[in-house]
Amino acid sequence: MKTAPSRFSSPYSPITPPIVQRIRLAVGEGCVLTEKEKLEPFGKDATELLHLPELVVEVRNVEEVQAVLRLANEHRFPVTPRGLGTGLTGGSVPVFGGVVLSLARMNRILSVDPRNMIAIVEPGVVNIDLKRAAREKGLFYPPDPASLDTCSLGGNAATNAGGPSCVKYGTTRDYLLGLEAVLPNGEKVTAGVQTRKGVVGYDLAHLIVGSEGTLGIITRLILKLIPHPPAVSTLVSFFPDLPSAMEAVTAILTSGHIPSAMEFMDRHCLELVGDMLAFESTVYSGAFLLLETDGSPAVVQQEIEKLGEVCLEHGALDVLLAPDSNRRNKMWEVRKEVSLRIEHSSPLYIPEDVVVPIGRIAEFVTGLPVFEKRYDMKIYAFGHAGDGNIHLNITAADPVARPRIEEGVSALLREVLTLGGTISGEHGIGFTKKGFLPLEISRESIRLQKAIKNVFDPLHILNPGKLFD
Amino acid sequence: MKTAPSRFSSPYSPITPPIVQRIRLAVGEGCVLTEKEKLEPFGKDATELLHLPELVVEVRNVEEVQAVLRLANEHRFPVTPRGLGTGLTGGSVPVFGGVVLSLARMNRILSVDPRNMIAIVEPGVVNIDLKRAAREKGLFYPPDPASLDTCSLGGNAATNAGGPSCVKYGTTRDYLLGLEAVLPNGEKVTAGVQTRKGVVGYDLAHLIVGSEGTLGIITRLILKLIPHPPAVSTLVSFFPDLPSAMEAVTAILTSGHIPSAMEFMDRHCLELVGDMLAFESTVYSGAFLLLETDGSPAVVQQEIEKLGEVCLEHGALDVLLAPDSNRRNKMWEVRKEVSLRIEHSSPLYIPEDVVVPIGRIAEFVTGLPVFEKRYDMKIYAFGHAGDGNIHLNITAADPVARPRIEEGVSALLREVLTLGGTISGEHGIGFTKKGFLPLEISRESIRLQKAIKNVFDPLHILNPGKLFD
Repeated sequence: MKTAPSRFSSPYSPITPPIVQRIRLAVGEGCVLTEKEKLEPFGKDATELLHLPELVVEVRNVEEVQAVLRLANEHRFPVTPRGLGTGLTGGSVPVFGGVVLSLARMNRILSVDPRNMIAIVEPGVVNIDLKRAAREKGLFYPPDPASLDTCSLGGNAATNAGGPSCVKYGTTRDYLLGLEAVLPNGEKVTAGVQTRKGVVGYDLAHLIVGSEGTLGIITRLILKLIPHPPAVSTLVSFFPDLPSAMEAVTAILTSGHIPSAMEFMDRHCLELVGDMLAFESTVYSGAFLLLETDGSPAVVQQEIEKLGEVCLEHGALDVLLAPDSNRRNKMWEVRKEVSLRIEHSSPLYIPEDVVVPIGRIAEFVTGLPVFEKRYDMKIYAFGHAGDGNIHLNITAADPVARPRIEEGVSALLREVLTLGGTISGEHGIGFTKKGFLPLEISRESIRLQKAIKNVFDPLHILNPGKLFD
Repeated sequence: MKTAPSRFSSPYSPITPPIVQRIRLAVGEGCVLTEKEKLEPFGKDATELLHLPELVVEVRNVEEVQAVLRLANEHRFPVTPRGLGTGLTGGSVPVFGGVVLSLARMNRILSVDPRNMIAIVEPGVVNIDLKRAAREKGLFYPPDPASLDTCSLGGNAATNAGGPSCVKYGTTRDYLLGLEAVLPNGEKVTAGVQTRKGVVGYDLAHLIVGSEGTLGIITRLILKLIPHPPAVSTLVSFFPDLPSAMEAVTAILTSGHIPSAMEFMDRHCLELVGDMLAFESTVYSGAFLLLETDGSPAVVQQEIEKLGEVCLEHGALDVLLAPDSNRRNKMWEVRKEVSLRIEHSSPLYIPEDVVVPIGRIAEFVTGLPVFEKRYDMKIYAFGHAGDGNIHLNITAADPVARPRIEEGVSALLREVLTLGGTISGEHGIGFTKKGFLPLEISRESIRLQKAIKNVFDPLHILNPGKLFD
């Protein structure tokens, strides 16, 4: 367990036994956890930074969410909404204590409607469960964060989660048509539509998407589904260095192809997971590219062969097509295993998640050794080459080096912004990256954002301590 | 010229000659229009409802936008931003007089970048001009409102414009990555990103999209481009009635195809434009479907033939493929001509723009004759079958019948909402549909929306009288 920074001294009153009693009365005895060992798993997310809540309420329906928020208004205790706790920036960590409101039990898929091609779900549904339910009806829910086996759709919406398929299919925002949410004052609102389009009033639904649980608690999602692509085809390709791999990526995109995945790993990553690939070329290659196309069977085979040719034209050492789904899964395992191995490789590990314009990935990644040397750290780069989203995994051998490494991270983020990029493509800000927000967002924009927060949450009871102070 | 309702008595002070002088000093003599005959074209949009501005300022750059808004703050005059005036709900009509701020001269395409697949444009660029500039570099900007030859990209963003290609490609929102806007207080902000992804703070860019010029004046847009599909294929199909056509639409979508257009027209429309089609079947058919697919040449031909088969399986009387681009354009002309002919067919014409869930289009349209009879009006229905967006064009022979027809419109909109639909898919609310907003949006949501408006525009100087009172 890592220790969390202690900069959060609570401006809130503690939750007294009479308040606990009122919460119990409102939601039922079995939904309230107070024992320390039961609270602990709800005090952290994938960052492993711990802040204990005072109690956990496991709500089962929207009325219970409303009841908890009404009591929070009356007694001014903070409420931190939580999906399944897979976040990477502490967004669901209760930094001021109070109540963690877990939506894990609200996990019903209410409908998967093939005629209207929508799904209506509760926020605690696991991403992959919706994918499966849609698949059974010939439909497809594309957003695919790396944690799709364990993350919740409510959390996906709160963070506007994305994944490898974004390059073709977009992020969660592009699939959320409408939602129901409970505001900090306990009122329930619906926003958006259950149709394909809608332009009536301000787009509150998409303002709540990506707001990291600071504006309202999503209690229902109306999601767009699309026809499931009937076929998929995959290849991996090895390049002598990253710039040549990135030239291939640009060439593929500008030649009229939109693959359904374009993932890359750099040399450092290959050193860690290269043993998983039974190809000689991993030893001497400097970059790995995984490409996938989907669509009608007649096309995907043609298209993947074409993509292989483009790779070879741009200096690929090897191009290997997956002949079957077994081999395809093996290729993906390599890509998925890399973050685990990086995390276990060093006592100090900071996952960053930057985006640069596609055409500048190579330039950016080529410059990383300068930062490694200057700050005595090792940077593993992998991610979504097709949309410029690079997961920079920064490690150091000495955990006490954290201040120096954080300085290095800050320098890296400034470089990203200089290149026209953004400091987070998927993970969001939460509380671990709050300090970097002003690097990217202007004062005037922060002023507006804080004012919007005040409109929704004048008492600051909902997920305080996140995004900005 | 139709007369506008006179319910707008201005709470603003008139623009006095000294204020005009200050505006002239700020933006230059040649950018200010004051003569009545020059003001008139800036006092209306495609609704033809006229409210004369006191003066028009044709800005050339963001600094001039800022200067006008600073003066508006000081002297409290209203400012109505205007793209190219093609809106259908009066969004750019200066209902309280004041300044119309025309962005037509800010019409430079600043860059079309094939490596990063983005375009950076000023708001006055005509939609088709960007499409052409992108096409020259092998890229595609999909949003295609019917007015694409004459409408501005700034206006498209302000209304989140869509068109036939939405069913496959989405609306303007899906292509806007970031923007620069001037707030009512004269401050310039940037929002969003110039990358494919970004989750840093609240999504102000997409809050401004669709806000109909009431939160800020967009002065620059960063737009996502995609590879241009190399081939396109088109067919028209005639059905005995609309329900069978809609069954075909549902069957196509659920069988795994996403056509790049799925347009329909009902029997009334065919009666008006059937003469443009040299097919015998138009005489006795009850519904028209135009389908288009795009992608690689090998696939589009196969796919369009498959779509034709699905139409025939669902009772199509005739299926006609476009053998060349000339024939293809002819097919589209029919679809494009219909709104003009409807408008000219009757002295009273109200264009509505509803969306129902895809699976309920047939049910909804089949029920229209009941409304026609009850309110003695004629309803022409055509639109985007693939996303449930129906343009209801309501006409009556007697212009003094307006109150009765408006009652009929209100009843129709209630029916749409009962079916799970929305009252506007593309046109927005402006001022002509303000009265209907509370039918769809709850009081709590309107309260939030008004509070957000107050955050951006506490003095209510920007595009007052729109969306809500």
